[in-house]
Amino acid sequence: MAYDSVETSAGRRDDALGGSATFFSVACSNFAPVSLVGVVGEDFRDGDVELFRSHDVDVSGLERVEGQTFRWSGVYGPEDVNTRTTLDTQLNVFADFAPRLSDTQRVSPCLFLANIAPSLQLDVLKQMRERPKLVALDTMNFWIEGNGAELKEVVRQVDIVFMDENEARSFTESVNLMQAARAIHSMGPSTVVVKRGEHGAILFHDGQPFLTPAVPLEHVIDPTGAGDTFAGGFLGYLAATEDLSEAGFRRAAVTGSVMASFVVEGFSLERLAEATSEEIESRFRQLATLTRFEPLAEDESLPRRNR
Amino acid sequence: MAYDSVETSAGRRDDALGGSATFFSVACSNFAPVSLVGVVGEDFRDGDVELFRSHDVDVSGLERVEGQTFRWSGVYGPEDVNTRTTLDTQLNVFADFAPRLSDTQRVSPCLFLANIAPSLQLDVLKQMRERPKLVALDTMNFWIEGNGAELKEVVRQVDIVFMDENEARSFTESVNLMQAARAIHSMGPSTVVVKRGEHGAILFHDGQPFLTPAVPLEHVIDPTGAGDTFAGGFLGYLAATEDLSEAGFRRAAVTGSVMASFVVEGFSLERLAEATSEEIESRFRQLATLTRFEPLAEDESLPRRNR
Repeated sequence: MAYDSVETSAGRRDDALGGSATFFSVACSNFAPVSLVGVVGEDFRDGDVELFRSHDVDVSGLERVEGQTFRWSGVYGPEDVNTRTTLDTQLNVFADFAPRLSDTQRVSPCLFLANIAPSLQLDVLKQMRERPKLVALDTMNFWIEGNGAELKEVVRQVDIVFMDENEARSFTESVNLMQAARAIHSMGPSTVVVKRGEHGAILFHDGQPFLTPAVPLEHVIDPTGAGDTFAGGFLGYLAATEDLSEAGFRRAAVTGSVMASFVVEGFSLERLAEATSEEIESRFRQLATLTRFEPLAEDESLPRRNR
Repeated sequence: MAYDSVETSAGRRDDALGGSATFFSVACSNFAPVSLVGVVGEDFRDGDVELFRSHDVDVSGLERVEGQTFRWSGVYGPEDVNTRTTLDTQLNVFADFAPRLSDTQRVSPCLFLANIAPSLQLDVLKQMRERPKLVALDTMNFWIEGNGAELKEVVRQVDIVFMDENEARSFTESVNLMQAARAIHSMGPSTVVVKRGEHGAILFHDGQPFLTPAVPLEHVIDPTGAGDTFAGGFLGYLAATEDLSEAGFRRAAVTGSVMASFVVEGFSLERLAEATSEEIESRFRQLATLTRFEPLAEDESLPRRNR
């Protein structure tokens, strides 16, 4: 849970609602019930709590403690909207945060361990009364570099790993993405999602790769939260359909991509929070159209020149 | 027509066969007859002429003149195989080259204007007895920056423009790729292909975008020639099938992507020249599998949470 101050070529926002749990929950809420666990300070605005409520996100696990909410500030671009520079990070109430799950949360069928210290991710997993059907985790370079051994321990215990391409490369010390994904897969997770920003993502499910497209956008405002929003759509689709087949995972990845396309069209959650079911489905259909080509029939050949 | 000296993390080659016309012709020759126009020096090796002949590329338009063949040398990576630094360029016999088409070539139904000065591209187009059914061009930043006005003049007269993402951005002064492609489309060409290296390409055909995937590769040896090889597969498919429908252009783009996947797996033409029809078709099928997901049926919805 964060207040972000962000500058991009499209403008800037100060102390706008952000944080992994925020983007994930609101994206996921379009498909399945979500219950979040997180911490905020005394400065957390009622209007922001209201935004979760209006999306039927269960905020009973939102701890409000003395002090200030976590703050991050950064600048994107200007040349490349995907290049970001962190200007400041203030841990504030997040510094001493130890997530505590309620009895209801301990029996959730689906658990997302958002980007946080691997030791805390492991602790949350241990609090579950029984192993959820699906456990997913996200992380960042900070933990890969500083807490690599602990992170490997958590990775071994989850089903789905989300990393961006740089994280996957650095975690596995493999420059090649296919090799990196295979290395993570061999550690235990049945599913690895390598996020590539505007280039979409690669889903590896049981060793089968799927190239997930990104919705081509003419106006990208702010990429903050795209990865967590992707994860929210992905797990929301799986939680709602309980379709854990290869086809289900592929659709989950496309749903993640669709949700991410909304969040980057505005600062903070300005666009994501407004996305309607009709708009979501329309972009899902658009991605099908954008990627469809006629495969070769079984007995068909490409033109072959006689030589 | 060039001799390239290339260093990548996989090794190096000195004075290896290269050049736009080379990569294009050999890729295209898998699908349709090709007749090339180009210039080489006295140092051009018989074995290299033989390579064209073994692919049934018509080399009657290959001029051999006094002096040395064009030379380029560069280094890729090491961090990112897509980042390249030019170490040296020697124009040699290319400096005074003025392409002359034979009578047979002047009635070709399909013309590819490879990366060369825009004024020469225009001159070649003027030599055609009648307007070919398809005229395509490739270019590079050097011409965009130095001969922008002439380049625009040629672009207006062609059907298909190939540019990589940086070229498209700089040519149109638009950071966003969708806007850049639309801008080029509005200048005249019915088809714009924006190449994105390992991320594939975006095909814009009559204003309809298609996200062309790239074959995910575990071992990229040398990206030199990938763009021209893509163009060779693309136009080879169209020339052979004469299918100028949206579906035909999409398959052409996938064929281009398939051919590019071979050339980067070796230095120079080491891998491309060995690609068999069976291998080409197998990768075409692989790309269909890698990108396929179940679209929503007309009356189907994504899961919607009641709220």
